[in-house]
Amino acid sequence: MKKYERLARDIEELVDAGTLAPGDRLPSVREAVSRRGVSASTVFEAYYLLESRGLIEARPRSGYFVKSPRRRSPEPHAPLPREESTSVAVYDRVQEALGSIRDRDVVPMGSAFPSPRLFPLHRLARAGASAMRRLEPDELLQDISPGNEELRRQLALRYAANGTAVGTDEVIVTNGAMEALNLCLRVATRPGDVVAIESPAFYGCLQALEWHQLKAVEISTHPRDGVQLDSLQHALERHPIKACWFMPNFQNPTGSLMPVDKKQALVELLAQHGVPLIEDDAYAELYFGARRPPPAKAFDRQGLVMHCSSFSKCLAPGYRIGWAAAGRFAREVERLKLMSTLSVAVPSQVAVLDYLLHAAYDKHLRGLRAALAERQAQALEAIERHFPAGTRVTRPEGGYLLWVELPDGVDGLQLQRLALARRISLTPGHLFSTAPHFHNFVRLNYGHPAPGQLEGALRTLGRLVHELAAEAGGSG
Amino acid sequence: MKKYERLARDIEELVDAGTLAPGDRLPSVREAVSRRGVSASTVFEAYYLLESRGLIEARPRSGYFVKSPRRRSPEPHAPLPREESTSVAVYDRVQEALGSIRDRDVVPMGSAFPSPRLFPLHRLARAGASAMRRLEPDELLQDISPGNEELRRQLALRYAANGTAVGTDEVIVTNGAMEALNLCLRVATRPGDVVAIESPAFYGCLQALEWHQLKAVEISTHPRDGVQLDSLQHALERHPIKACWFMPNFQNPTGSLMPVDKKQALVELLAQHGVPLIEDDAYAELYFGARRPPPAKAFDRQGLVMHCSSFSKCLAPGYRIGWAAAGRFAREVERLKLMSTLSVAVPSQVAVLDYLLHAAYDKHLRGLRAALAERQAQALEAIERHFPAGTRVTRPEGGYLLWVELPDGVDGLQLQRLALARRISLTPGHLFSTAPHFHNFVRLNYGHPAPGQLEGALRTLGRLVHELAAEAGGSG
Repeated sequence: MKKYERLARDIEELVDAGTLAPGDRLPSVREAVSRRGVSASTVFEAYYLLESRGLIEARPRSGYFVKSPRRRSPEPHAPLPREESTSVAVYDRVQEALGSIRDRDVVPMGSAFPSPRLFPLHRLARAGASAMRRLEPDELLQDISPGNEELRRQLALRYAANGTAVGTDEVIVTNGAMEALNLCLRVATRPGDVVAIESPAFYGCLQALEWHQLKAVEISTHPRDGVQLDSLQHALERHPIKACWFMPNFQNPTGSLMPVDKKQALVELLAQHGVPLIEDDAYAELYFGARRPPPAKAFDRQGLVMHCSSFSKCLAPGYRIGWAAAGRFAREVERLKLMSTLSVAVPSQVAVLDYLLHAAYDKHLRGLRAALAERQAQALEAIERHFPAGTRVTRPEGGYLLWVELPDGVDGLQLQRLALARRISLTPGHLFSTAPHFHNFVRLNYGHPAPGQLEGALRTLGRLVHELAAEAGGSG
Repeated sequence: MKKYERLARDIEELVDAGTLAPGDRLPSVREAVSRRGVSASTVFEAYYLLESRGLIEARPRSGYFVKSPRRRSPEPHAPLPREESTSVAVYDRVQEALGSIRDRDVVPMGSAFPSPRLFPLHRLARAGASAMRRLEPDELLQDISPGNEELRRQLALRYAANGTAVGTDEVIVTNGAMEALNLCLRVATRPGDVVAIESPAFYGCLQALEWHQLKAVEISTHPRDGVQLDSLQHALERHPIKACWFMPNFQNPTGSLMPVDKKQALVELLAQHGVPLIEDDAYAELYFGARRPPPAKAFDRQGLVMHCSSFSKCLAPGYRIGWAAAGRFAREVERLKLMSTLSVAVPSQVAVLDYLLHAAYDKHLRGLRAALAERQAQALEAIERHFPAGTRVTRPEGGYLLWVELPDGVDGLQLQRLALARRISLTPGHLFSTAPHFHNFVRLNYGHPAPGQLEGALRTLGRLVHELAAEAGGSG
């Protein structure tokens, strides 16, 4: 944990304990520097982080103050999963649940994507048009797997700028992150093998395990800091685990962010056991803190981490440009990619490349993060206001997803049905596990609905949860 | 066989037998109509077909005349493969052989693609730019599997125009034909199953079988009319064949074209055995005859034919737009597509769709076919002129590939090495089978080299074959 993260955590604990009450003024930067013996920039970063989380607010020329939520919902529980390997069969329920979300007339809180209106689509289309005009005909056939050389070099440069050493040779361009993750899973396993996943886990991960006939061991995952390493270690000792598939940054669905030192410990633990990590890092650019959290890949010394990401959630939805930085498995991933889909669409590759080279990508990202952070604050306030006591909710430091634990006895699937009848979609918790741990959970996407829809949709959802909670209380 | 095909075959036999000699004038259309009792259009189509094959030529205001080749090389042999199921392990030799082809400085007779200069790339780029400008942001997320609805409808309409009944629901857009073929193979088989393939077979088919751990039974395939149905029937009776993967139109590498009635018999034979056909039809638009040959899918009454194709060889190389019309397997293919790569790049989908709707696709295709037919005639003449006696070569009625049987004792791999030293690539025959039947074969691409390169490259190759044949004769 960085110094500013520690300072922010300490302040958060003071607020949680009531020592700092709503309306209280925080120490000035000068005071904090002298009291804590840290630099001014550490204090600024800590305050900025707390502000992005909606805990404090800046008042012009007065300093920072603790905001006054009506009530601050506690974090959801992290149920202890059975530590057994299970086969996976979720496809049908996932498709059934997701079918409704494609409907255009609903408030899309069940979507897996942020709103495409948050992306520079016209600028990107111009980049694509310009790049395709300049393209030599022969280049259309050159960019087969592992992908456009210059795009791969730019990806390697972005890793380097974030302090992660990745060679251009290691990067294979894929059809979105999903293909990258599937290819990595294939090279690391054979049908029947056991894979460690998070609990709750992204349903796309569960579907991939099902497809490849793999068994899952679900590892307890804290909604704030991710996979519990002691549970993982225990599982590694008990099961012949062939690979892990984790999301250390802004996990789907919890939004958990694994602290830096925990990531390092994770990579070391897996290196001791010789187990590869498939790192799904699709949301890393969507951080609300001061800087991009590093991937676990940053601590990989043995080429055991296969880092997978894409531009689908941060720049170019629908373009299907993802990649794997696959360490020692790079040539095998390339081989499998050649055999399965040969190559990635050149128009998409050169559009993204042209945008990276000639447009203000980092400026776009700053705007995107600010928009998502603001929507998160709105969504959390609306949940505080409208949902009944007993509701628990995450406050992720990035991404666009909230993981909500409903009061006892309220069923996520039932809430989904009632909500759909009111033209609101959401994702029920039972899609995120092979076990029945998460039936009273839902995942809410605050990044896709229009800002004007958020408050009303959450008010309606809150009312439905009140009704379901009353019914559950009445019958219980 | 259609009437015009029968007429053309009869004339060809007269030429082969010497009854019609070079320089002889063919009957006028009027004479042929009255002698054969066929329509004038049948005669025109037959003459057009023979002209496209380089057998006859039109002289202005004089009629059609038999051309005077120096010598007409006979067809290559079709070795009888061992009728055993074998496991497949070809990836490394394929990659080794293909590695050289990507080099930009060689005459690319080993390429798997026609020259990208034959495609309307600028018009296509304009179509893409225009479509992306008009796109609603939400549409970027709508076009997930099975793909853009309107594109799928256009594909179904093109099937209908060619007399094949395919519903829009049956069509799944994929990342090129290769993904379509792999998905179909996956839904029809389990690891260890036996699949019937052609002999020789496209090496991409062999790689797919290797990847999915399937066994191959190679079926004797005639270089003119494709898979031998009696061999197939025999194999169906002896082996637990779970699927066939064939290319009835312009097979890769032989260029064989299965006659219409044989396609119908093939589909009926497989229906009797309840065996699905995975039909690779990537080259169907590249016919030199009067009209597009129908796919085997046209005769499918039971939904057992999974028809796979793409725009990569006829319109949009590098865009990676393919599809499967997967009959009764459509929902399973869609399911697997969702899990493996989710969706296909929207910029590519809408570019191709916009081109289909607003540009002169059929006019482009006519020009492309004429260019390829002309190059084939040039290539065949050069081979007649420069290759030694004992050389055998196909005269495909479409596509851009020649299958050349070298004189006894000349090794295709050795020829490849010598040719590469002279900056000419080619594809050695041993890539097209698990068995050592085709070591004295090579596949030559006449559609990729610039027209000015063909004659010189084939002269060089011919000289090398002469040398190798002399060595083989000397040592034998």
